[in-house]
Formats: sequence, structure tokens, C-alpha cells
Amino acid sequence: MSKERKVGRREFLKQGSMLLTGAAASSALAPGAAAQNLAGEPWERVYGAAFTLYGERSRFEHPVVRRIVKRYGDFAPGSGVALSPIESLEGIITPSSLHNVRSHSGTPDIDPKRHQLVLHGLVARPMRFSVDALLRYPMVTRIHFLECSGNSGRALAPQPTQAPAGFLHGNMACSEWTGIPVRTLLEEAGVLPQAKWLLAEGADSAHMSRSIPLEKILDDALIALYQNGERLRPEQGYPVRLLLPGWEGNMNVKWLRRLKLLEEPMYTKDETSKYTDLLPDGRALQFTFEMGVKSVITKPSSTMTLPRAGLYEISGLAWSGAGRIRRVEVSTDGGVTWRDAALTGEERLKAFVRFRLPWEWKGDEARLQSRATDEKGQVQPARSDWLAQYSPANTFHNNSIVTWSVGADGSVKHVYA
Amino acid sequence: MSKERKVGRREFLKQGSMLLTGAAASSALAPGAAAQNLAGEPWERVYGAAFTLYGERSRFEHPVVRRIVKRYGDFAPGSGVALSPIESLEGIITPSSLHNVRSHSGTPDIDPKRHQLVLHGLVARPMRFSVDALLRYPMVTRIHFLECSGNSGRALAPQPTQAPAGFLHGNMACSEWTGIPVRTLLEEAGVLPQAKWLLAEGADSAHMSRSIPLEKILDDALIALYQNGERLRPEQGYPVRLLLPGWEGNMNVKWLRRLKLLEEPMYTKDETSKYTDLLPDGRALQFTFEMGVKSVITKPSSTMTLPRAGLYEISGLAWSGAGRIRRVEVSTDGGVTWRDAALTGEERLKAFVRFRLPWEWKGDEARLQSRATDEKGQVQPARSDWLAQYSPANTFHNNSIVTWSVGADGSVKHVYA
Repeated sequence: MSKERKVGRREFLKQGSMLLTGAAASSALAPGAAAQNLAGEPWERVYGAAFTLYGERSRFEHPVVRRIVKRYGDFAPGSGVALSPIESLEGIITPSSLHNVRSHSGTPDIDPKRHQLVLHGLVARPMRFSVDALLRYPMVTRIHFLECSGNSGRALAPQPTQAPAGFLHGNMACSEWTGIPVRTLLEEAGVLPQAKWLLAEGADSAHMSRSIPLEKILDDALIALYQNGERLRPEQGYPVRLLLPGWEGNMNVKWLRRLKLLEEPMYTKDETSKYTDLLPDGRALQFTFEMGVKSVITKPSSTMTLPRAGLYEISGLAWSGAGRIRRVEVSTDGGVTWRDAALTGEERLKAFVRFRLPWEWKGDEARLQSRATDEKGQVQPARSDWLAQYSPANTFHNNSIVTWSVGADGSVKHVYA
Repeated sequence: MSKERKVGRREFLKQGSMLLTGAAASSALAPGAAAQNLAGEPWERVYGAAFTLYGERSRFEHPVVRRIVKRYGDFAPGSGVALSPIESLEGIITPSSLHNVRSHSGTPDIDPKRHQLVLHGLVARPMRFSVDALLRYPMVTRIHFLECSGNSGRALAPQPTQAPAGFLHGNMACSEWTGIPVRTLLEEAGVLPQAKWLLAEGADSAHMSRSIPLEKILDDALIALYQNGERLRPEQGYPVRLLLPGWEGNMNVKWLRRLKLLEEPMYTKDETSKYTDLLPDGRALQFTFEMGVKSVITKPSSTMTLPRAGLYEISGLAWSGAGRIRRVEVSTDGGVTWRDAALTGEERLKAFVRFRLPWEWKGDEARLQSRATDEKGQVQPARSDWLAQYSPANTFHNNSIVTWSVGADGSVKHVYA
């Protein structure tokens, strides 16, 4: 709170007089003008709408939606991604209705009275859990991000795509999750000494499945039952999903039906044909679980236009699969100089942080970048450094610095730098 | 996190063997049984639903809704309250669709392109702000609760009402809010030295309005524009509301159209005919802004049934208008003995805290209570102590300890104690 105030307000007040003519242009009222506005708009003269049982957003906000990219066209309308419109959102929590979705065979319509979770393999006591039974276990509540390892793959095209930030970097979201530490269930079942991995399998018709080291499960994995206060949404795994904080999205298996303790990984189709990282020499890196330190400026961002010179707030998101975000720096000159942004939420592990920095745009060309550092000292890499690590064909784990250029006409474009 | 683990896991493991026979009864699998379940449910054998632009919850969760109490019946279907079903929710964030609503003349359908906020009265430069102009100001993001001062008034009937926790105590919610410190706008307009109060007025047809001390506005008041990541919901004040963290709900004026700087309060209808607290001698306390320290157990709670003896988690919410929650104690014997609950979110000011305590129910009668203490040292009062402060006709600011009784048959009832 103190940091937020210090940076935000000091900068803001220093440039306070810009407000009257700048981007945030409010208008001074002529004497007597206030009274005119006070006559009232149409909605002030009619009785408003009735209460609703389950609220909806304003019809004026309906243009804010996810962007759907179907991998196999209309033949498979639930295979692919629905990307979160991060450029239209604020704060840290992603509204559940606008959470990104990555699914392999659509969203199953699961009856929670029939769904079961089986825990078996190398355990002393194989177990089966109904959803009602799971709902009675002791729970924890934590805020964590989820990011598809293919997020920002769209920012690797030969030429920079001119698309909103959400289309390029919106295969991610952050929610408040409530669930059961998986460790609790394992202790009840009794893990045998030779067990080192788990297979997690979903109840979708693809039976999406991944192998997960036991060590991670015992560290901080959750059986998530609630998302942002209410029960999980179907597109996020209703009624039960696995949550592996900070690890690549598809390992957080949705519609979880089975956890099997194993000596070795299963090498499922979802971790061999997909979700491996191609290297320059043609080999593929497998099991690169942790998502890298990363950030992106959401406002202003690609396809937006600054209406006039003046004071703006640069705002965006930062996160790291390794733990807390320690620092976010912002450059408006393409990385020549950097300033520290104010952070909100930096006390949380493996969660989005909102960063903010006031910026006076004088009407010249500018290049906006953000660079995150996490508590392990990892720094978000420059685009050229990141590219040098991989084959040009690799599309996973792109956490490189994003650049938005601002033209003299105020247009904001996606550029490679 | 450390505290959460310490209390939650220690207690849980101590009683671990209860799980197999207790409330959280999962079933041990007979040899070979796992394979049967693996044959798959119907939804595993068909391709799932297509992606959606704006997600919805599962049809199996549709029974979880707000409870509507219309103050004047169908004559005024948007006057009264819609209560949050807190007994069905988890974590700290209230889903926006299930946020409580208190409205005096329904929900206006406001066009954000036409709505304006006027700042006038005792200022050097009266100003008018379009919503687009407000959206460009530097913002902050914070999690805060909102509670109607009439919340828990339903727990003051002569006999304890047998209704779910949300019907009795659900006139409250907690969200992540993003907006502009009001102080920023006041500094731009230039507050004149004689100004001590503000009038805040809504754009609903009731023009709901309250007088607010300037000191509070300068401390932590926000012009809120975003709620849980997306723009405010209409029922919570779209496109602009005032947020006065920790102060009684209706002062957080929704659909905010006007802030007028004044020397003295306006004594509007909404702070004279309503929202005053009757004392035993017939006088009424006015301007009791801050919400008291309070807590309520949401699971298990009134109208629920415990299916069998065994281990349960007692879970609930605590909050204080004065700042942070320092401690929540739970009693299962009607206040004779108390144990400290594990807390989540206690680092936040004026926000819900989730508390949890494992409890082994042996099948005997029990009386569940929670008692919150805040960082100012204020302790949630016993019911009798709270009642002694007011006239029996008073229904505002009831923050007294709530008691749920558990019968030998597992039925949970609302009792006065």
C-alpha cells in the first residue's frame, strides 16, 4: 500500500496540471454549468430494474469477450483456446466468465452426483471420493495464476501480429482457488516408498493426462473445488480440477477423475506429441514444468490509440512460476532507460501482480516495455536472448519482453525489439 | 500460509483416521474396483461443449442464488435487498453475480457514454468527468468488504429464524475493487479550506445520497470502476461507484453522479429517516459510519445437516471496518471454551478473512460460535451485551456473536445464546 501510494501519487501530482489538457482530460465547469447536468439523464427519471437471482454485467460491456481459436475449425468447436481479453481487464483477479480456456475435446457436462475421483496405483489403500466427500475435507484458499505453456506463441510469427494484447498473451488468468491439499488425500491413502510420479487424468472425452512428480504434489498441489468464491466453472474443470501452482496450464488437469501413483512418468500423448520445447539442434526438451518470470503491459497496448499527448497510466500484469514477483521495471524508450513500477499483490506466491507507472506522453514516438524479476533473481529475458535458446519452430514457454510502439499519431502497435 | 498449515494440518492429521469413518467419508476400494470406475461416465464418451465467449456456471449449480426480499412487494421489485448465499460460497472473494444488493429504486440502465461525474461545491475549480476520462486516471487495486448496516437485522426477531446463514447475514460481500483515489480528483479541483463534508449522490431515480466527512474521503475512499477484474456490475453501481472501505454499505454510493463539497452534512432522507440507530432511551444515533468487528460460521450453519459423526471443517468469514482481523476464536460448546482458527487473508485491511478449524463431531449436541478480534483490539460482542446498547426496535449494526446449535440428529439450527 505504501509503495503504491508513494510512486503513484508522487508522480501523478508532479504532473498534475497535465490533467486538464492531457489524456485524462476532465473539463472544468463554467459557472452555473453544474446545474445543467443535474437535470438528470433518462435513467434517473424511471424506476430501475428488478433484483436478479444471479447478476449479469451491463449490456454496454457485452463487446468484452474471449477470443476463440479453434484448432480444427468447426469440426471440433471445443478444441483449441478461448483467450482472455486482458487488455480490457483491471486488477489481479480474472472474472471466471473471462478466464482463458484450453481444451482438447470440449467441455464435458459433468453431474457432480456421479463424478468420482479415484486415487490408486502405488498406495497402501486405494480410495474413491465422491464430490460430496471431497467438499467436507479441510480446505485452503489461495490466489494463483494459470498460464498455458503455449501462451505468447502468437507473438512468435515472422512479423509482429497487430492484434490486442489478449489475443497474443491472453492464454492465462488468475483466480482465487479453494480446495484440498492433495497431500492430505495421499496421506490418507498411504503412498508406497517406490512411488515417485503421479498420473493425473481428466474426465473429458480426450482423457487429457499428464505425469507429475510426487515432490510437486506434496509441495503445494490442490484439489480445487471453488474458483473466485463459487464452485469451479465447467470450462475450468467442474466439479474437480488439479491445481499445480506455477506449472504449465495443461498439467492442472481439469475434470479430474484419477490420480495414479507410479514409479516413473507415463509419457502420455499430452506430454510427448505436445508440450515439449524444440531446441536449435532438433532435440526436444520434455517436462519443462515451471512457467518463467514474465510481464506484459495491458494499457496502453497493441491496437489502442492514445487520443492526445498528456498523462497516462501504464498498467500491466507480472507473474512467475517460481514464486513471488520482486520487481517490475518499465521502459518507454525501448529498453534504454527503466523505471520501477508500483506493485499490487507482490506478497503472493505464483499469482498475478498488477504493476502501474504514470507516464507523460509528449506526443513523440515511444517504445513501451516491461521487465519482471522474481524472488529467485530470475529476470524476464530480452526477445533475442529467448529466441537463441530454441528452434525457430518452438512455440512454448515464450516469456520474453514484449514491446508496444506508440506512434506520433497515438497509435499503439506490436513490434519486435 | 504458515499459520494456515500449522493449525489446519496438525489438527487434521491428529484425527486422520476419523476420515475413513467420519463425515468426509471416502471409501476404500476393494481390489480390482478401480477398473470399474475407469469404464467412464457418459460425458467421457461424447465430445464436449464448444467454447463460449463469456462463460457460465454449471447447470448443476443453478440452485445457488441470491435471496430477494422486496420491501414494498411487486409494486417496487427493485427496492429492498438481494442477499448473498454465503453458506454456499468459499474463500474470500464473492462472485459478482452473487454479490449482495441493497437498492432503493431498482437498478438503472446507465449508458457510460452519457454518464458524468460532477465535482462541485466548495472547490476552486468545479469539474465534470466523463467515464472515459475517469478510466485514464492512475488507479489502485484493493480487496474490501461491503456490508449493509442492516445486515443481521433478521437475526433480531423475537424467536430465532430457521433460515440459511445467507438469509440472516448475507447482506454483505467482498470484492477486488480497482479505481481512483478520490483524493486525486479533489486535489485537481482544489478543496477550499472551509470544506469539511461531501454530499455523494447516485444516478438512480431515488437519487440515494449521503453526507461523508472529508477526512474519510482523503484517507482511503475510491472512485471504483472495476470489480473482480471486469467493469462494475450494474447492481453494484455501473459505471461508477463510491467506495468507503469499512463504512456502512449505503454510503458507498452506487451510480455516482455528484460529489459536492460542503461545510456541514446535508441531512438527506437517507441519513435521517433511515440508517440511524435507536437507543434504549428513544434517541437515535446518527452517523455511525464504521462497521463493527464481526464473524459468522458459514459451514456448518443453520438448516444444514451433518450426515454422521466424524471430522468436519468449521469455516466462516470475519471482518472489521476498523482495519485488519487479528484473531478468530471458535467455540463448539456455546462459548465455554475457545480455540484459535486458522486465517486466510488477515494481511488485508477491511476485507473478509476466511477462518477454518477442524472439528471432530462425536454425535453429541454442540453449540458453534465464532468471535473475531481486530487490530484495534475490538472484540465481537456477545448477543446480550450488544442488545443492551440499543432499543429493541433497532435493526442496524448488529455485529453480535452468532450461535448455531447441532442436534444429536445432526440438524443445525439457529439459536439465541
